[in-house]
Amino acid sequence: MRIDVLTLFPQMFEVMNESMMWKAREIGALELHVHDLRDWSTDKHRTVDEPPYGGGGGMLLKVDVVVPAVEAVRGTSDAPVILLGPLGRVFQHQMAMELAQRERLILLCGHYEGFDERVRELVVSEEISIGDYVLTGGELAAMVIIDAVVRQIPGVLGAEGGAERESHADGLLEGPHYTRPVEYRGLGVPDVLKAGNHAQIEQWRRRESLRRTWRLRPDLLRTAPLSEDDAYFLAELALEDARARGAR
Amino acid sequence: MRIDVLTLFPQMFEVMNESMMWKAREIGALELHVHDLRDWSTDKHRTVDEPPYGGGGGMLLKVDVVVPAVEAVRGTSDAPVILLGPLGRVFQHQMAMELAQRERLILLCGHYEGFDERVRELVVSEEISIGDYVLTGGELAAMVIIDAVVRQIPGVLGAEGGAERESHADGLLEGPHYTRPVEYRGLGVPDVLKAGNHAQIEQWRRRESLRRTWRLRPDLLRTAPLSEDDAYFLAELALEDARARGAR
Repeated sequence: MRIDVLTLFPQMFEVMNESMMWKAREIGALELHVHDLRDWSTDKHRTVDEPPYGGGGGMLLKVDVVVPAVEAVRGTSDAPVILLGPLGRVFQHQMAMELAQRERLILLCGHYEGFDERVRELVVSEEISIGDYVLTGGELAAMVIIDAVVRQIPGVLGAEGGAERESHADGLLEGPHYTRPVEYRGLGVPDVLKAGNHAQIEQWRRRESLRRTWRLRPDLLRTAPLSEDDAYFLAELALEDARARGAR
Repeated sequence: MRIDVLTLFPQMFEVMNESMMWKAREIGALELHVHDLRDWSTDKHRTVDEPPYGGGGGMLLKVDVVVPAVEAVRGTSDAPVILLGPLGRVFQHQMAMELAQRERLILLCGHYEGFDERVRELVVSEEISIGDYVLTGGELAAMVIIDAVVRQIPGVLGAEGGAERESHADGLLEGPHYTRPVEYRGLGVPDVLKAGNHAQIEQWRRRESLRRTWRLRPDLLRTAPLSEDDAYFLAELALEDARARGAR
Protein backbone atom coordinates (compact mmCIF):
# COMPACT_ATOMS: atom_id res chain seq x y z
CA MET A 1 0.00 0.00 0.00
CA ARG A 2 1.12 3.52 -0.77
CA ILE A 3 0.08 6.36 1.51
CA ASP A 4 0.70 10.01 0.65
CA VAL A 5 0.32 12.63 3.37
CA LEU A 6 -0.03 16.36 2.66
CA THR A 7 0.79 18.51 5.68
CA LEU A 8 2.38 21.73 6.89
CA PHE A 9 4.37 19.69 9.43
CA PRO A 10 6.11 16.90 7.49
CA GLN A 11 8.70 16.41 10.21
CA MET A 12 5.99 15.22 12.62
CA PHE A 13 5.77 12.01 10.57
CA GLU A 14 9.28 10.96 11.49
CA VAL A 15 7.61 9.35 14.48
CA MET A 16 6.22 6.81 12.03
CA ASN A 17 9.52 4.98 11.90
CA GLU A 18 8.93 3.16 15.16
CA SER A 19 8.28 -0.53 15.64
CA MET A 20 5.34 -1.82 13.58
CA MET A 21 5.58 0.97 11.02
CA TRP A 22 9.23 0.34 10.48
CA LYS A 23 8.52 -3.32 9.89
CA ALA A 24 5.69 -2.56 7.47
CA ARG A 25 8.08 -0.49 5.39
CA GLU A 26 10.84 -3.06 5.59
CA ILE A 27 8.67 -5.88 4.25
CA GLY A 28 7.35 -3.60 1.52
CA ALA A 29 3.78 -3.48 2.85
CA LEU A 30 3.88 0.32 3.19
CA GLU A 31 5.34 3.10 1.11
CA LEU A 32 4.87 6.39 2.97
CA HIS A 33 5.36 9.71 1.17
CA VAL A 34 5.04 12.91 3.17
CA HIS A 35 4.61 16.17 1.25
CA ASP A 36 4.97 19.72 2.53
CA LEU A 37 1.95 21.82 1.49
CA ARG A 38 4.18 24.87 1.67
CA ASP A 39 5.96 23.65 -1.47
CA TRP A 40 2.82 24.67 -3.40
CA SER A 41 2.59 28.24 -2.15
CA THR A 42 3.03 30.70 -4.97
CA ASP A 43 4.57 33.76 -3.34
CA LYS A 44 7.99 34.49 -1.94
CA HIS A 45 6.76 34.42 1.67
CA ARG A 46 5.55 30.82 1.15
CA THR A 47 2.06 31.86 2.27
CA VAL A 48 -0.34 28.95 2.74
CA ASP A 49 -3.07 30.52 4.89
CA GLU A 50 -5.11 33.72 5.18
CA PRO A 51 -7.84 35.07 7.49
CA PRO A 52 -11.44 34.10 6.66
CA TYR A 53 -13.93 36.31 4.79
CA GLY A 54 -16.34 37.75 7.31
CA GLY A 55 -13.72 37.96 10.06
CA GLY A 56 -13.75 36.10 13.34
CA GLY A 57 -10.10 35.23 13.76
CA GLY A 58 -8.14 32.15 12.85
CA MET A 59 -6.49 31.27 9.57
CA LEU A 60 -7.63 29.08 6.69
CA LEU A 61 -5.54 26.99 4.33
CA LYS A 62 -5.85 28.51 0.86
CA VAL A 63 -7.74 26.69 -1.88
CA ASP A 64 -5.21 27.78 -4.53
CA VAL A 65 -2.39 26.12 -2.57
CA VAL A 66 -4.12 22.93 -1.44
CA VAL A 67 -5.91 21.98 -4.66
CA PRO A 68 -2.79 22.14 -6.88
CA ALA A 69 -0.87 20.21 -4.19
CA VAL A 70 -3.43 17.41 -4.07
CA GLU A 71 -3.63 17.25 -7.86
CA ALA A 72 0.15 17.06 -8.22
CA VAL A 73 0.43 14.27 -5.65
CA ARG A 74 -2.55 12.32 -6.98
CA GLY A 75 -1.46 12.51 -10.61
CA THR A 76 -3.61 10.20 -12.73
CA SER A 77 -4.36 7.75 -9.91
CA ASP A 78 -7.89 7.27 -8.57
CA ALA A 79 -6.71 7.09 -4.94
CA PRO A 80 -9.26 8.55 -2.51
CA VAL A 81 -8.34 11.92 -1.00
CA ILE A 82 -9.21 11.72 2.69
CA LEU A 83 -9.41 14.92 4.70
CA LEU A 84 -8.80 14.49 8.42
CA GLY A 85 -11.34 16.76 10.00
CA PRO A 86 -14.19 17.17 12.44
CA LEU A 87 -16.96 16.82 9.82
CA GLY A 88 -15.99 13.31 8.91
CA ARG A 89 -17.47 9.92 9.60
CA VAL A 90 -16.14 8.79 12.96
CA PHE A 91 -13.30 6.30 12.41
CA GLN A 92 -13.90 2.73 13.57
CA HIS A 93 -12.21 -0.65 13.31
CA GLN A 94 -14.39 -1.70 10.36
CA MET A 95 -13.23 1.37 8.39
CA ALA A 96 -9.59 0.49 9.10
CA MET A 97 -10.17 -2.96 7.61
CA GLU A 98 -11.82 -1.47 4.53
CA LEU A 99 -9.09 1.11 3.94
CA ALA A 100 -6.45 -1.64 4.30
CA GLN A 101 -7.83 -3.15 1.05
CA ARG A 102 -6.95 -0.04 -0.98
CA GLU A 103 -3.79 0.19 -3.04
CA ARG A 104 -3.26 3.84 -2.28
CA LEU A 105 -4.57 6.53 0.08
CA ILE A 106 -3.99 10.28 0.09
CA LEU A 107 -4.36 11.93 3.50
CA LEU A 108 -4.84 15.68 3.74
CA CYS A 109 -4.05 17.31 7.09
CA GLY A 110 -5.37 20.72 8.05
CA HIS A 111 -4.08 23.05 10.71
CA TYR A 112 -5.23 26.33 12.27
CA GLU A 113 -8.96 26.88 11.72
CA GLY A 114 -9.23 24.55 8.75
CA PHE A 115 -9.57 24.71 4.98
CA ASP A 116 -11.24 27.07 2.57
CA GLU A 117 -14.52 25.23 1.95
CA ARG A 118 -13.81 24.96 -1.77
CA VAL A 119 -11.04 22.44 -1.02
CA ARG A 120 -13.78 20.01 0.03
CA GLU A 121 -15.80 20.70 -3.09
CA LEU A 122 -12.91 20.34 -5.53
CA VAL A 123 -10.66 17.50 -4.35
CA VAL A 124 -11.83 15.73 -1.19
CA SER A 125 -13.39 12.27 -1.62
CA GLU A 126 -14.12 11.62 2.02
CA GLU A 127 -13.68 13.22 5.43
CA ILE A 128 -12.76 11.14 8.47
CA SER A 129 -12.73 12.20 12.12
CA ILE A 130 -10.94 10.05 14.70
CA GLY A 131 -13.31 11.14 17.49
CA ASP A 132 -15.47 13.89 18.95
CA TYR A 133 -12.69 16.10 20.25
CA VAL A 134 -10.79 19.09 18.89
CA LEU A 135 -7.19 18.64 17.73
CA THR A 136 -4.76 21.33 16.62
CA GLY A 137 -4.20 19.70 13.27
CA GLY A 138 -4.92 16.63 11.20
CA GLU A 139 -1.41 15.22 11.68
CA LEU A 140 -2.04 13.10 14.78
CA ALA A 141 -5.32 11.92 13.24
CA ALA A 142 -3.47 10.88 10.07
CA MET A 143 -0.94 8.93 12.15
CA VAL A 144 -3.73 7.18 14.04
CA ILE A 145 -5.36 6.14 10.77
CA ILE A 146 -2.06 5.02 9.23
CA ASP A 147 -1.30 2.91 12.31
CA ALA A 148 -4.77 1.35 12.46
CA VAL A 149 -4.86 0.64 8.72
CA VAL A 150 -1.32 -0.63 8.19
CA ARG A 151 -1.55 -3.18 10.98
CA GLN A 152 -4.46 -4.78 9.10
CA ILE A 153 -2.26 -5.50 6.06
CA PRO A 154 -1.39 -9.23 6.05
CA GLY A 155 2.15 -9.95 7.22
CA VAL A 156 2.70 -6.68 9.07
CA LEU A 157 2.03 -7.94 12.59
CA GLY A 158 3.73 -11.32 12.14
CA ALA A 159 4.89 -12.92 15.34
CA GLU A 160 4.05 -9.89 17.48
CA GLY A 161 0.55 -11.36 17.91
CA GLY A 162 -2.28 -11.53 15.41
CA ALA A 163 -4.54 -8.52 14.96
CA GLU A 164 -7.51 -10.81 15.39
CA ARG A 165 -6.80 -11.33 19.10
CA GLU A 166 -7.23 -7.72 20.15
CA SER A 167 -10.00 -5.56 21.58
CA HIS A 168 -12.49 -4.43 18.93
CA ALA A 169 -11.09 -6.89 16.37
CA ASP A 170 -13.93 -9.36 17.07
CA GLY A 171 -16.30 -6.62 18.17
CA LEU A 172 -15.67 -7.27 21.90
CA LEU A 173 -13.23 -5.98 24.51
CA GLU A 174 -10.34 -8.29 25.41
CA GLY A 175 -10.41 -10.02 28.77
CA PRO A 176 -7.54 -9.89 31.29
CA HIS A 177 -4.07 -11.30 30.56
CA TYR A 178 -1.24 -12.17 32.95
CA THR A 179 2.46 -12.85 32.69
CA ARG A 180 5.25 -13.59 35.19
CA PRO A 181 5.78 -13.23 38.11
CA VAL A 182 3.06 -15.63 39.19
CA GLU A 183 2.47 -13.61 42.33
CA TYR A 184 3.02 -9.87 42.79
CA ARG A 185 2.08 -7.92 45.91
CA GLY A 186 -0.37 -10.62 46.89
CA LEU A 187 -2.07 -10.75 43.51
CA GLY A 188 -1.94 -14.06 41.64
CA VAL A 189 -2.78 -15.50 38.23
CA PRO A 190 -6.10 -17.35 37.61
CA ASP A 191 -5.56 -21.14 37.93
CA VAL A 192 -7.11 -21.94 34.58
CA LEU A 193 -4.33 -20.04 32.77
CA LYS A 194 -1.64 -21.98 34.61
CA ALA A 195 -3.19 -25.44 34.08
CA GLY A 196 -2.56 -25.53 30.33
CA ASN A 197 -5.87 -26.99 29.12
CA HIS A 198 -6.32 -25.07 25.90
CA ALA A 199 -10.04 -25.66 25.42
CA GLN A 200 -10.69 -24.44 28.97
CA ILE A 201 -8.41 -21.44 28.46
CA GLU A 202 -10.24 -20.49 25.27
CA GLN A 203 -13.62 -20.75 26.99
CA TRP A 204 -12.41 -18.74 29.98
CA ARG A 205 -11.00 -16.01 27.74
CA ARG A 206 -14.16 -15.80 25.66
CA ARG A 207 -16.27 -15.45 28.80
CA GLU A 208 -14.01 -12.84 30.39
CA SER A 209 -14.15 -10.93 27.14
CA LEU A 210 -17.95 -11.09 27.14
CA ARG A 211 -18.06 -10.15 30.85
CA ARG A 212 -15.87 -7.12 30.34
CA THR A 213 -17.81 -5.95 27.30
CA TRP A 214 -21.09 -6.41 29.19
CA ARG A 215 -19.80 -4.32 32.10
CA LEU A 216 -17.86 -1.60 30.27
CA ARG A 217 -19.21 -1.27 26.73
CA PRO A 218 -22.57 -3.04 26.41
CA ASP A 219 -23.19 -0.97 23.25
CA LEU A 220 -20.62 -3.16 21.45
CA LEU A 221 -22.78 -6.27 22.04
CA ARG A 222 -25.38 -4.98 19.62
CA THR A 223 -23.04 -5.52 16.66
CA ALA A 224 -20.58 -8.22 17.81
CA PRO A 225 -20.99 -11.70 16.24
CA LEU A 226 -22.19 -13.96 19.10
CA SER A 227 -22.59 -17.75 19.34
CA GLU A 228 -25.41 -19.53 21.18
CA ASP A 229 -23.01 -20.22 24.07
CA ASP A 230 -22.14 -16.52 24.19
CA ALA A 231 -25.80 -15.55 24.32
CA TYR A 232 -26.51 -17.93 27.22
CA PHE A 233 -23.49 -16.63 29.10
CA LEU A 234 -24.71 -13.06 28.62
CA ALA A 235 -28.10 -14.11 29.95
CA GLU A 236 -26.36 -15.48 33.07
CA LEU A 237 -24.49 -12.19 33.54
CA ALA A 238 -27.70 -10.20 33.18
CA LEU A 239 -29.40 -12.43 35.75
CA GLU A 240 -26.45 -12.13 38.16
CA ASP A 241 -26.62 -8.33 37.93
CA ALA A 242 -30.37 -8.28 38.38
CA ARG A 243 -30.06 -10.47 41.50
CA ALA A 244 -27.29 -8.26 42.89
CA ARG A 245 -29.51 -5.21 42.48
CA GLY A 246 -32.46 -7.03 44.05
CA ALA A 247 -30.34 -7.97 47.08
CA ARG A 248 -29.49 -4.36 47.88
CA MET B 1 -0.03 21.68 34.00
CA ARG B 2 2.48 18.91 34.30
CA ILE B 3 2.09 15.76 32.18
CA ASP B 4 4.22 12.67 32.71
CA VAL B 5 4.23 9.98 30.04
CA LEU B 6 5.49 6.43 30.64
CA THR B 7 6.30 4.61 27.41
CA LEU B 8 8.64 2.17 25.70
CA PHE B 9 9.07 4.70 22.87
CA PRO B 10 10.01 8.02 24.46
CA GLN B 11 11.51 9.35 21.23
CA MET B 12 8.04 9.28 19.60
CA PHE B 13 7.12 12.26 21.78
CA GLU B 14 9.65 14.52 20.10
CA VAL B 15 6.83 15.23 17.68
CA MET B 16 5.20 17.17 20.51
CA ASN B 17 7.50 20.13 19.93
CA GLU B 18 5.49 21.43 17.00
CA SER B 19 3.41 24.58 16.86
CA MET B 20 0.79 24.77 19.63
CA MET B 21 2.66 22.39 21.93
CA TRP B 22 5.83 24.37 21.59
CA LYS B 23 3.95 27.52 22.51
CA ALA B 24 2.29 25.86 25.51
CA ARG B 25 5.71 24.95 26.85
CA GLU B 26 7.17 28.36 26.12
CA ILE B 27 4.47 30.19 28.08
CA GLY B 28 4.80 27.72 30.95
CA ALA B 29 1.34 26.19 30.49
CA LEU B 30 2.79 22.71 29.97
CA GLU B 31 5.65 20.80 31.48
CA LEU B 32 6.02 17.48 29.64
CA HIS B 33 8.15 14.69 31.10
CA VAL B 34 8.61 11.52 29.08
CA HIS B 35 9.91 8.43 30.91
CA ASP B 36 11.26 5.22 29.39
CA LEU B 37 9.60 2.18 31.03
CA ARG B 38 12.70 0.18 30.17
CA ASP B 39 14.58 2.13 32.86
CA TRP B 40 12.63 0.10 35.43
CA SER B 41 13.48 -3.35 34.10
CA THR B 42 15.48 -5.33 36.60
CA ASP B 43 17.63 -7.66 34.50
CA LYS B 44 20.63 -7.07 32.29
CA HIS B 45 18.61 -7.65 29.08
CA ARG B 46 16.31 -4.77 30.06
CA THR B 47 13.30 -7.09 29.77
CA VAL B 48 9.94 -5.35 30.02
CA ASP B 49 7.58 -7.92 28.51
CA GLU B 50 6.89 -11.65 28.55
CA PRO B 51 4.42 -14.05 26.90
CA PRO B 52 1.04 -14.49 28.61
CA TYR B 53 0.09 -17.37 30.90
CA GLY B 54 -2.14 -19.72 28.96
CA GLY B 55 -0.38 -19.04 25.65
CA GLY B 56 -1.91 -17.47 22.57
CA GLY B 57 0.96 -15.32 21.35
CA GLY B 58 1.77 -11.69 21.89
CA MET B 59 3.68 -10.11 24.73
CA LEU B 60 2.52 -8.39 27.92
CA LEU B 61 4.17 -5.57 29.82
CA LYS B 62 5.30 -6.93 33.17
CA VAL B 63 3.58 -5.83 36.37
CA ASP B 64 6.88 -5.77 38.28
CA VAL B 65 8.30 -3.26 35.80
CA VAL B 66 5.28 -1.01 35.26
CA VAL B 67 4.09 -0.66 38.87
CA PRO B 68 7.47 0.48 40.27
CA ALA B 69 7.82 2.87 37.30
CA VAL B 70 4.44 4.48 37.93
CA GLU B 71 5.12 4.72 41.66
CA ALA B 72 8.51 6.35 41.10
CA VAL B 73 7.10 8.92 38.69
CA ARG B 74 4.01 9.66 40.78
CA GLY B 75 5.93 10.08 44.03
CA THR B 76 3.66 11.49 46.72
CA SER B 77 1.36 13.33 44.27
CA ASP B 78 -2.28 12.38 43.84
CA ALA B 79 -2.17 12.83 40.05
CA PRO B 80 -4.49 10.40 38.23
CA VAL B 81 -2.75 7.58 36.38
CA ILE B 82 -4.49 7.25 33.03
CA LEU B 83 -3.95 4.13 30.99
CA LEU B 84 -4.44 4.57 27.25
CA GLY B 85 -6.24 1.45 26.20
CA PRO B 86 -9.22 -0.14 24.51
CA LEU B 87 -11.20 -0.73 27.71
CA GLY B 88 -11.44 2.93 28.52
CA ARG B 89 -14.22 5.47 28.40
CA VAL B 90 -14.26 6.86 24.87
CA PHE B 91 -12.52 10.24 24.85
CA GLN B 92 -14.69 13.28 24.03
CA HIS B 93 -14.39 17.04 24.04
CA GLN B 94 -16.03 17.34 27.47
CA MET B 95 -13.37 15.04 28.96
CA ALA B 96 -10.61 17.19 27.45
CA MET B 97 -12.06 20.23 29.19
CA GLU B 98 -12.24 18.37 32.51
CA LEU B 99 -8.69 17.03 32.29
CA ALA B 100 -7.44 20.56 31.46
CA GLN B 101 -8.47 21.59 35.00
CA ARG B 102 -6.02 19.13 36.61
CA GLU B 103 -2.62 20.21 37.84
CA ARG B 104 -0.95 17.01 36.79
CA LEU B 105 -1.67 13.92 34.69
CA ILE B 106 0.26 10.67 34.36
CA LEU B 107 -0.26 8.85 31.07
CA LEU B 108 0.66 5.19 30.77
CA CYS B 109 1.19 3.82 27.24
CA GLY B 110 1.06 0.12 26.48
CA HIS B 111 2.45 -1.66 23.48
CA TYR B 112 2.28 -5.18 22.05
CA GLU B 113 -0.71 -7.07 23.45
CA GLY B 114 -1.11 -4.90 26.52
CA PHE B 115 -0.46 -5.01 30.25
CA ASP B 116 -0.49 -7.72 32.87
CA GLU B 117 -3.96 -7.23 34.35
CA ARG B 118 -2.53 -6.53 37.81
CA VAL B 119 -1.20 -3.20 36.54
CA ARG B 120 -4.82 -2.04 36.30
CA GLU B 121 -5.60 -3.29 39.77
CA LEU B 122 -2.58 -1.75 41.45
CA VAL B 123 -1.92 1.67 39.92
CA VAL B 124 -4.39 2.71 37.21
CA SER B 125 -6.98 5.36 38.18
CA GLU B 126 -8.76 5.51 34.87
CA GLU B 127 -8.58 4.04 31.38
CA ILE B 128 -9.27 6.16 28.30
CA SER B 129 -9.73 5.03 24.70
CA ILE B 130 -9.54 7.57 21.88
CA GLY B 131 -11.90 5.54 19.68
CA ASP B 132 -13.16 2.12 18.65
CA TYR B 133 -10.15 1.06 16.63
CA VAL B 134 -6.99 -0.93 17.34
CA LEU B 135 -3.67 0.90 17.62
CA THR B 136 -0.20 -0.62 17.99
CA GLY B 137 0.46 1.27 21.20
CA GLY B 138 -0.82 3.94 23.51
CA GLU B 139 1.65 6.54 22.27
CA LEU B 140 -0.46 8.11 19.52
CA ALA B 141 -3.46 8.03 21.86
CA ALA B 142 -1.45 9.86 24.53
CA MET B 143 -0.41 12.50 22.01
CA VAL B 144 -4.01 12.99 20.92
CA ILE B 145 -5.08 13.48 24.52
CA ILE B 146 -2.20 15.83 25.29
CA ASP B 147 -3.04 17.92 22.22
CA ALA B 148 -6.78 18.06 22.97
CA VAL B 149 -6.23 18.85 26.66
CA VAL B 150 -3.41 21.38 26.41
CA ARG B 151 -5.25 23.54 23.87
CA GLN B 152 -8.00 23.99 26.47
CA ILE B 153 -5.59 25.63 28.91
CA PRO B 154 -6.22 29.40 28.90
CA GLY B 155 -3.59 31.36 26.94
CA VAL B 156 -2.31 28.46 24.87
CA LEU B 157 -4.24 29.20 21.69
CA GLY B 158 -3.88 32.96 21.86
CA ALA B 159 -4.25 34.78 18.56
CA GLU B 160 -4.37 31.57 16.51
CA GLY B 161 -8.15 31.57 17.00
CA GLY B 162 -10.13 30.76 20.11
CA ALA B 163 -10.91 27.16 20.95
CA GLU B 164 -14.54 28.16 21.32
CA ARG B 165 -14.98 28.70 17.57
CA GLU B 166 -14.26 25.14 16.52
CA SER B 167 -16.26 22.03 15.70
CA HIS B 168 -17.42 20.17 18.83
CA ALA B 169 -16.48 23.11 21.08
CA ASP B 170 -20.11 24.29 21.20
CA GLY B 171 -21.45 20.81 20.57
CA LEU B 172 -22.03 21.47 16.84
CA LEU B 173 -20.00 21.06 13.67
CA GLU B 174 -18.51 24.25 12.21
CA GLY B 175 -20.03 25.66 9.04
CA PRO B 176 -18.01 26.50 5.90
CA HIS B 177 -15.27 29.15 5.83
CA TYR B 178 -13.64 30.90 2.90
CA THR B 179 -10.52 32.94 2.27
CA ARG B 180 -8.89 34.55 -0.79
CA PRO B 181 -8.98 34.26 -3.76
CA VAL B 182 -12.60 35.39 -4.05
CA GLU B 183 -13.10 33.14 -7.06
CA TYR B 184 -11.29 29.89 -7.80
CA ARG B 185 -12.16 27.57 -10.69
CA GLY B 186 -15.60 29.09 -10.95
CA LEU B 187 -16.37 28.74 -7.23
CA GLY B 188 -17.06 31.96 -5.31
CA VAL B 189 -17.54 33.13 -1.72
CA PRO B 190 -21.06 33.64 -0.24
CA ASP B 191 -22.10 37.31 -0.53
CA VAL B 192 -22.98 37.64 3.17
CA LEU B 193 -19.33 37.01 4.14
CA LYS B 194 -18.10 39.73 1.80
CA ALA B 195 -20.68 42.37 2.83
CA GLY B 196 -19.24 42.91 6.33
CA ASN B 197 -22.49 43.06 8.37
CA HIS B 198 -21.37 41.29 11.52
CA ALA B 199 -24.81 40.45 12.88
CA GLN B 200 -25.79 38.89 9.56
CA ILE B 201 -22.49 37.01 9.37
CA GLU B 202 -23.00 35.59 12.86
CA GLN B 203 -26.53 34.47 12.03
CA TRP B 204 -25.41 32.91 8.74
CA ARG B 205 -22.57 31.06 10.47
CA ARG B 206 -24.81 29.76 13.22
CA ARG B 207 -27.32 28.48 10.70
CA GLU B 208 -24.69 26.83 8.48
CA SER B 209 -23.32 25.18 11.57
CA LEU B 210 -26.78 23.88 12.49
CA ARG B 211 -27.42 22.79 8.89
CA ARG B 212 -24.19 20.85 8.70
CA THR B 213 -24.75 19.19 12.06
CA TRP B 214 -28.31 18.28 11.06
CA ARG B 215 -27.07 16.68 7.82
CA LEU B 216 -23.88 14.99 9.00
CA ARG B 217 -24.11 14.34 12.74
CA PRO B 218 -27.72 14.73 13.95
CA ASP B 219 -26.72 12.72 17.06
CA LEU B 220 -24.82 15.81 18.28
CA LEU B 221 -28.04 17.84 18.39
CA ARG B 222 -29.30 15.79 21.30
CA THR B 223 -26.71 17.34 23.63
CA ALA B 224 -25.81 20.72 22.04
CA PRO B 225 -27.10 23.85 23.84
CA LEU B 226 -29.70 25.35 21.45
CA SER B 227 -31.55 28.69 21.50
CA GLU B 228 -35.19 29.16 20.50
CA ASP B 229 -34.01 30.58 17.14
CA ASP B 230 -31.85 27.48 16.64
CA ALA B 231 -34.79 25.20 17.35
CA TYR B 232 -37.04 27.00 14.83
CA PHE B 233 -34.30 26.83 12.21
CA LEU B 234 -33.93 23.08 12.80
CA ALA B 235 -37.68 22.72 12.39
CA GLU B 236 -37.41 24.47 9.00
CA LEU B 237 -34.61 22.11 7.95
CA ALA B 238 -36.65 19.09 8.98
CA LEU B 239 -39.66 20.37 7.02
CA GLU B 240 -37.50 21.07 3.95
CA ASP B 241 -36.14 17.52 4.03
CA ALA B 242 -39.60 16.04 4.53
CA ARG B 243 -40.92 18.00 1.54
CA ALA B 244 -37.96 16.95 -0.60
CA ARG B 245 -38.68 13.30 0.24
CA GLY B 246 -42.38 13.78 -0.49
CA ALA B 247 -41.62 15.31 -3.91
CA ARG B 248 -39.68 12.27 -5.07
